[in-house]
Amino acid sequence: MKREEVFNFSAGPSVLPTPVLERAASELLNYRGSGMSVMEMSHRSGVFMELFAETKARLRAALSVPETHEILFLQGGASLQFSMIPLNLSAEGDTVDYAVTGNFARIACREAEKYCRVNVAASSESTDFDRIPAQKELKLSPEAKYFYYCANNTIYGTAWPYVPETAAPLVCDMSSEILSRPVDVSRYGLIFAGAQKNMAPAGLTVVIIDKALAGKERPVTPLMLSYQRMIDKDSMYNTPPCYNIYVLGLVLDWVAANGGVAGMEKLKKQRSALLYNYLDESRLFKPCAGKDCRSDMNVTFRTGDAALDAEFVKFTQANGMQNVKGHRSVGGMRASIYNAMPVEGVEKLVALMKEFEVKHHV
Amino acid sequence: MKREEVFNFSAGPSVLPTPVLERAASELLNYRGSGMSVMEMSHRSGVFMELFAETKARLRAALSVPETHEILFLQGGASLQFSMIPLNLSAEGDTVDYAVTGNFARIACREAEKYCRVNVAASSESTDFDRIPAQKELKLSPEAKYFYYCANNTIYGTAWPYVPETAAPLVCDMSSEILSRPVDVSRYGLIFAGAQKNMAPAGLTVVIIDKALAGKERPVTPLMLSYQRMIDKDSMYNTPPCYNIYVLGLVLDWVAANGGVAGMEKLKKQRSALLYNYLDESRLFKPCAGKDCRSDMNVTFRTGDAALDAEFVKFTQANGMQNVKGHRSVGGMRASIYNAMPVEGVEKLVALMKEFEVKHHV
Repeated sequence: MKREEVFNFSAGPSVLPTPVLERAASELLNYRGSGMSVMEMSHRSGVFMELFAETKARLRAALSVPETHEILFLQGGASLQFSMIPLNLSAEGDTVDYAVTGNFARIACREAEKYCRVNVAASSESTDFDRIPAQKELKLSPEAKYFYYCANNTIYGTAWPYVPETAAPLVCDMSSEILSRPVDVSRYGLIFAGAQKNMAPAGLTVVIIDKALAGKERPVTPLMLSYQRMIDKDSMYNTPPCYNIYVLGLVLDWVAANGGVAGMEKLKKQRSALLYNYLDESRLFKPCAGKDCRSDMNVTFRTGDAALDAEFVKFTQANGMQNVKGHRSVGGMRASIYNAMPVEGVEKLVALMKEFEVKHHV
Repeated sequence: MKREEVFNFSAGPSVLPTPVLERAASELLNYRGSGMSVMEMSHRSGVFMELFAETKARLRAALSVPETHEILFLQGGASLQFSMIPLNLSAEGDTVDYAVTGNFARIACREAEKYCRVNVAASSESTDFDRIPAQKELKLSPEAKYFYYCANNTIYGTAWPYVPETAAPLVCDMSSEILSRPVDVSRYGLIFAGAQKNMAPAGLTVVIIDKALAGKERPVTPLMLSYQRMIDKDSMYNTPPCYNIYVLGLVLDWVAANGGVAGMEKLKKQRSALLYNYLDESRLFKPCAGKDCRSDMNVTFRTGDAALDAEFVKFTQANGMQNVKGHRSVGGMRASIYNAMPVEGVEKLVALMKEFEVKHHV
């Protein structure tokens, strides 16, 4: 199939902007007259160091990251952060607060239990993660070293509609929503995000950390898992994932050219409204997430009939829509509509939903 | 500069074969009719799973990896292996043997000291890592859980001319020489290698592990750092570095088309002989590594005069040779001549050395 015939609704790795890929392809064999690909460059070379510094500066500008916070380009995915966070931000016997609002928050919480006393400050597990607890429901520990939450739950299609108020520093998994809206970074102790949704190809993890929180890693912490070491070495204790950082730079250019994160927010509201407005009226398809905590990035829905769901997924696929199937643990459908998903793709999906509804609804 | 005017002698990330990059560029926006870039594909999609399985099979074939051993595609670089190895292959109080023959072996050794009793079985630190200890010099512990060594010391330009004979399983850092020669994998408990020299862009670490050694990680081991978990999940506990794996597949195609690892070995001998033969005759340039343990991948040399070294590096750079400068910790020159370095590049470098020698030697 041609690229323009396909709309890729994958939850991650996800669609990247076509102009970004065109640029990457055009300079893949020779980066701006260096005679080399970015894939081949020494990470200590002048040409790469400049690219690295520029990308970091662009990300700092895009999210208005204050000077109190450092930006790190790491590896290992969000899952490695699940361990790095307790290993660096707590000592043995310390208490930490976790909000369990989805599969990944639950894994992060279990991982922390290996290292500290974990207080589950809130959980929506009993209702299959269909909601986000309200501020007044949070059972915060006065002595917590941090409060952990996942801003957007990719599998269930929920998102926190507010920033929690806590005495402890906020630690937030923003993998599925970073760069999709403005964020007041100063309110967070640590933000992390796997790159493969809104930023770059898989293999890069962005961490934004309040420098005051670093430097207290446990003696047992693996050398690559110390935030302070990575701050000291500007993410280059060893070779960073250079090419992913390069693509992130191209994506940040594209974001800037499209109105920055405020522009991204407008577009995401436009895309998600198309889907939710239709879902609220549909007599066949039902949205899964609670109305007050719907994700603009991952829209989950179902017909209530697994066979019909499967037929619909097949129907979308035959029409160039990729990965509309829900996560294997929950079934149903999921349309992941990250920054790089054109509004046109969502319009086409809604049109297909309408067509399918007319055909199947009595 | 044009790509064909540049020869990149970087120690890593390093030159990749031009046909590999051409192929990558040609399918960057649309991988074989999928309508998507490999960078955008769900790692659980059929098209990516096939690519993944094929790449693994090609690597297994290239190195004749026996069925007793699993191949893992991980993140974090060789430096993360420095921690994973003791965390998985030893218990608290266990003894492990390390041969310290360079900077990275020394870091690995120090990291292991956090977790076990480390016996330094051999070290060449007192002579600035210019040699590799002989088998009879190795002071092996009878109770060692493993014997660790670094096959090729990138900074110093030395390589082990033999495979150590030990009762304990061999654990080997092959970052700088993997795929450059046939290896009897069955002799090793664990082989690991950062991809950014002979395999793929930085951000991928290949581990080849005897499955019998896995499954004994300590309770404190971060969840992403368990070999057994990665074996159970076929390297997909979370999203792997998909694009790097794809490029590795292209590189493995190129290796196969050029005679496999036996073909690579012939070429590397040809390249390194050009340099060492000249160095042995030169009256200006002196090789750094002991003659019996010279690396075919990283050829280190110097004039003995730091100012003249700097002038030579400048001279090579003006002639399209990139990264001929030695590592910042040792100075002098280093020509890294990995698989993808054309023989022509080495010939040109030797010609420049001769020209420089005529001009500067009395």
